[in-house]
Amino acid sequence: MSERRFTNQQIDRLLRPKSVAVIGASDRKGALGATLLNNLVQYDFAGDIYPVNPKRDELLGLKVYKGVDELPEGIDCAVLAIPRPFVLDTVRQLAARKCGAVVIYSAGFSEAGEEGLKEQLELGEIARETGMVIEGPNCLGCTNYVERVPLTFVETNMQSPPKGTRAVGIASQSGALAAVLATALHPRGCYVSTSVSTGNEAAAGVEDFVEWLVDDEDTHVITMYVESLRRPKAFIAAARRAREAGKPIIMLHPGKSNKAQESAATHTGAMAGDYQLMKIKLGREGVIFADTLEELADITEIALRCKALPGANMAVLGESGALRGLAFDIAEDIGLDLIDLNDDNSPALRAVLPDFVPVSNPTDITAIGLSEPEIYTKVLTALLEDDRVGSVVASIIQSDPITSEIKFPAIIKVLESGSFDKPLVFAGVDEGATVPAEYIEGLRKVGIPWFPSTERAYRAIARLADLAKRDLSDRSQAPLAVAGIAEENGVVPEYKAKALLKPLGISFPDSTFAPTADDAAAAADALGYPVVMKAQAAALGHKSDAGGVILNLKTADDVREAFTRMYANVAAYDAAIALDGVLVEKMGRMGTEMIVGAKSDPEWGPVVLAGFGGVTAEILKDVKLFTPEMDVAAVKAGLLDLKQAAILQGYRGAPALDVDALADLIVQIGRVMAGNPAIREIDLNPVIIHPNGEGVVALDALMLVQQ
Amino acid sequence: MSERRFTNQQIDRLLRPKSVAVIGASDRKGALGATLLNNLVQYDFAGDIYPVNPKRDELLGLKVYKGVDELPEGIDCAVLAIPRPFVLDTVRQLAARKCGAVVIYSAGFSEAGEEGLKEQLELGEIARETGMVIEGPNCLGCTNYVERVPLTFVETNMQSPPKGTRAVGIASQSGALAAVLATALHPRGCYVSTSVSTGNEAAAGVEDFVEWLVDDEDTHVITMYVESLRRPKAFIAAARRAREAGKPIIMLHPGKSNKAQESAATHTGAMAGDYQLMKIKLGREGVIFADTLEELADITEIALRCKALPGANMAVLGESGALRGLAFDIAEDIGLDLIDLNDDNSPALRAVLPDFVPVSNPTDITAIGLSEPEIYTKVLTALLEDDRVGSVVASIIQSDPITSEIKFPAIIKVLESGSFDKPLVFAGVDEGATVPAEYIEGLRKVGIPWFPSTERAYRAIARLADLAKRDLSDRSQAPLAVAGIAEENGVVPEYKAKALLKPLGISFPDSTFAPTADDAAAAADALGYPVVMKAQAAALGHKSDAGGVILNLKTADDVREAFTRMYANVAAYDAAIALDGVLVEKMGRMGTEMIVGAKSDPEWGPVVLAGFGGVTAEILKDVKLFTPEMDVAAVKAGLLDLKQAAILQGYRGAPALDVDALADLIVQIGRVMAGNPAIREIDLNPVIIHPNGEGVVALDALMLVQQ
Repeated sequence: MSERRFTNQQIDRLLRPKSVAVIGASDRKGALGATLLNNLVQYDFAGDIYPVNPKRDELLGLKVYKGVDELPEGIDCAVLAIPRPFVLDTVRQLAARKCGAVVIYSAGFSEAGEEGLKEQLELGEIARETGMVIEGPNCLGCTNYVERVPLTFVETNMQSPPKGTRAVGIASQSGALAAVLATALHPRGCYVSTSVSTGNEAAAGVEDFVEWLVDDEDTHVITMYVESLRRPKAFIAAARRAREAGKPIIMLHPGKSNKAQESAATHTGAMAGDYQLMKIKLGREGVIFADTLEELADITEIALRCKALPGANMAVLGESGALRGLAFDIAEDIGLDLIDLNDDNSPALRAVLPDFVPVSNPTDITAIGLSEPEIYTKVLTALLEDDRVGSVVASIIQSDPITSEIKFPAIIKVLESGSFDKPLVFAGVDEGATVPAEYIEGLRKVGIPWFPSTERAYRAIARLADLAKRDLSDRSQAPLAVAGIAEENGVVPEYKAKALLKPLGISFPDSTFAPTADDAAAAADALGYPVVMKAQAAALGHKSDAGGVILNLKTADDVREAFTRMYANVAAYDAAIALDGVLVEKMGRMGTEMIVGAKSDPEWGPVVLAGFGGVTAEILKDVKLFTPEMDVAAVKAGLLDLKQAAILQGYRGAPALDVDALADLIVQIGRVMAGNPAIREIDLNPVIIHPNGEGVVALDALMLVQQ
Repeated sequence: MSERRFTNQQIDRLLRPKSVAVIGASDRKGALGATLLNNLVQYDFAGDIYPVNPKRDELLGLKVYKGVDELPEGIDCAVLAIPRPFVLDTVRQLAARKCGAVVIYSAGFSEAGEEGLKEQLELGEIARETGMVIEGPNCLGCTNYVERVPLTFVETNMQSPPKGTRAVGIASQSGALAAVLATALHPRGCYVSTSVSTGNEAAAGVEDFVEWLVDDEDTHVITMYVESLRRPKAFIAAARRAREAGKPIIMLHPGKSNKAQESAATHTGAMAGDYQLMKIKLGREGVIFADTLEELADITEIALRCKALPGANMAVLGESGALRGLAFDIAEDIGLDLIDLNDDNSPALRAVLPDFVPVSNPTDITAIGLSEPEIYTKVLTALLEDDRVGSVVASIIQSDPITSEIKFPAIIKVLESGSFDKPLVFAGVDEGATVPAEYIEGLRKVGIPWFPSTERAYRAIARLADLAKRDLSDRSQAPLAVAGIAEENGVVPEYKAKALLKPLGISFPDSTFAPTADDAAAAADALGYPVVMKAQAAALGHKSDAGGVILNLKTADDVREAFTRMYANVAAYDAAIALDGVLVEKMGRMGTEMIVGAKSDPEWGPVVLAGFGGVTAEILKDVKLFTPEMDVAAVKAGLLDLKQAAILQGYRGAPALDVDALADLIVQIGRVMAGNPAIREIDLNPVIIHPNGEGVVALDALMLVQQ
């Protein structure tokens, strides 16, 4: 089931055009139509160029057309460097002349209000009807560096990747960041294959271009800036294909902070997605996340230059003990795993180190490398050969050209002579030290990225190692159909929700629904005392607030009295709420309160949330997200990564709690969500987790169904 | 009361020597004594040089002395480039010849075991007896860049600060990091005045050199790498003087992570201090903390180049909406305050922005600056003129030389024409963009640091703004003497601790100490039921574990029975514990459990810890440290910065809690600690915090006294 809106052939007309029309061509300095035309001519665009300007006959030696109607039919791509009011009509005309693609620079569409939004929707309609690929509006255009097609109005440095070189494809919702990325990558000796900025995405979105980049043989890594994925399902499909093709996707997506979410909303005219939901879902598709622009370029370089991505455990060769303590601090800060290496567990490393240097990680070889540079070669080789090590950093004091001359060749030698399927990264300690360019090039030539600072190498590797730590295989179990769900719609109150879920093995306290006081008393007699009574109505969201929960009822009379009082409470709280009755439930044992919830988005699919319940945990947001593809082991690992996980493991002599049962419940809820798309939300709160082997019990349940 | 061990005149003999002996002078390539001698000759050391080597007559045209006994008396400084076994004797000889200072490069002292430690202590003894300044052992030496004295064995780039230029003094316990810092600062156009590496600190420690740097008129900023302050009191005195002199101290101190603490212990042969204690104490002296080496250099540049340090709120001029969301994310991550600027609250800014650009922070001026570069000048000036703004960042897309030519002059103009006592920092967005050196120099010349990435500028400013947010004034109230403390020694059990503290206004539940069952029953009758009974003995640290706490006793008979049971419990728990008796206490109201503790270090002085109690909070370490210099307002601000502070403020309809009373208690405990140096620890756990106006009550109390 493809989610693609455009075929590669259609997108080729934008990114590999044989003919380009420049609507609004100009020679006025600084005009968009001037820079664009200049880019095309300067870089010897191999196809036909059709400048359009009613007031000119010739520009840069090219014949100028008076209007779109003069253009031949079937031009591959038209770039619109014209004011907004003329855009929509021009696109209509171009569509009529069977133009394959248009690039729209102008802003003032969906981000500017009603009128702009309307026109943008019409642009989308034209694309749908005709198959025309529309890039923008409000974008910076695109550049195919391989085929030398610069359809952008920014000064372009056309660095084409030499044959056989790995290159990155850029798909960005921000034009500025697409440009900035290319500017930052080129001086590092990293090549860009094709860069596309999608702006408001009237028709084609980043997901469409990712699909194209996956099939582009000149693209090996895909780097993205995204504020809001408008078609998550399509993006997930594209990301999955990218992973199958072995092309890592590296993404910078603001929105961790609340303020960033507000900002995204005003900036792109699109509501920002739920950042955490996006992250867990795309994380499962192998997407690598950067937190800053610096990281985005840093990670991209490692992904481009190294033969493979970093595995889970990093090892470091260093030259100063002081850097060891700093490494521990930063590793703990960013969640980077420094593998424990010592004299006992690392004989190979022991064998190549001088006696006075203990094996450790970071290994502090001291200044001995200055007189015995072969130590660099030997130690780095030993680290790369160690199966426990997922990546290696050489954290080096570069000092000056004389020192470089000693150290660099010995490090370059490691990958010159060896062949390792894990990254070796060179990280300077003294940023700004004068290092002859030949050494940096020498590193790069053999596949060793050169980083200006050790901190940055650590950060980039941490982000990449995060991928290595994820289990991406689909371990989902068969979806579970909820019998009777078809009859529900809207909020499903507790007694019904429990009745629906109980047959699927979700554990609740014994309970009986009672529409009258006598029924309630009889139910309590049958259940055994003490009981709790809870008011039941779809409209009653917060039972406790309404006096709709009464605990610890010990006799039938208590129950009858409570029934009357509860009806009075709820009537006083909101006269509009008519109770269905009450749920009489056996009081269970106390225990640690957890929360398990789930929600399903038509595009993103279902996700299960679980964590600590209660006020404290709510403030601390001590919860994790899980997907139905995760099995009990993966869920358990996630639970044991909660901030307060120590409580689950038996803190201070308390018994360890039944994390297996909790993980089971989470997996089960995932199966329920996967099996019943009509269920939009489930809320089990609290879920009491008992000591190991004694299971979990959900005290409350609420569902939201939308048929 | 000075804590200084050396006078400036004594340290001058090391850092401004008129004569230098090179013990172990050599011409063997790579030998320490060769590079050192070469450094002295190469940089035309203005004083006398005395090379010492029994096997040579002449080196680099200088007469060589056979041994220390041949040297004249009273040489200022001798540098020992000789193997460890010869060090101690040589230092003794030099001391006998009235040499003023020695530098010891050799390792193998306290960090290498018993024997080395013994020799190191002897070195310390020589220094104490003779006033000789000893740098090291296990150090890299020192360099005075102003007077061109390179007493180090690393290749030195002698960049002397031009007259009138602000320069940084470096004091580092790691020689490698001292060298690395100079290498990193020089290419940024930052000058070093004097750099000292202290190694094992047999005699002179970083605090001694900070004292000297405070008085050095060529030093304006002091940058440090510290693993363990061996003389905290002396360092605090030095830091205080530095602050009075207007010389910021910027410190990199590993140890946040547990692993770093282990590492520090093995590396320097000194136990690492308690990182948090160090941080609160030095924070009060105005020390600025960097978390990484990159930050250390970045912060140093801002402190050197800008006229003043950043205030508390940052404003940003940017050129892309995409960077706004990223700014919010990173600001939240690093605790940086982005001031809220909008059309309504910022008329001056509104007046200089184009209509279509809303006032915001970061302000997104779009690409308009390319055609109207005066916007940079106007907007940055308006931001700098705004009293609410503590620092300004220009976050700029540099692109290429043509773009630089447009943007840089308009930005340089801001400080060329204006004069502002707050920093303006230029931060590139596209690291690696080709920017003509003249523009970077142009920025620097007017006092604008040029940062390669915006993230780094934000981080450095955040660390500096942290200082602006601290109230450093001494608001300590009069110390409180505890009557009767002189009679206590060792662990003071609960009933005595409460009796000692109650007169000072610390609130406890009403209670009576009872040595017999009858006394206990009588006490309970008098107090009123229910009561709690607690076993009392100095040796009984954990009452609950021993069955030494019995709650909710409702009658005199209950109390008698409990008394007998409690004695049996404790006897069963540990037969060696003899109870003094029991404390009978009125049961108080339940409430949120906090913890208040205090400890006093002979060097660091007292510190009070407070935060949330209970298991969850213990796992989350949701506590803060306070010092006796802080007043109720400052303590309250700290409490409201706890992770779970929302609970204190009345979460979800619960009443707001009496934070004022808690802050009062903390201040009171600070006064107690300040007034009674014999009290080493106080532990009030739990302290129940009641709703606003209803106070706090400490349920338990424990003290440790050392006379």
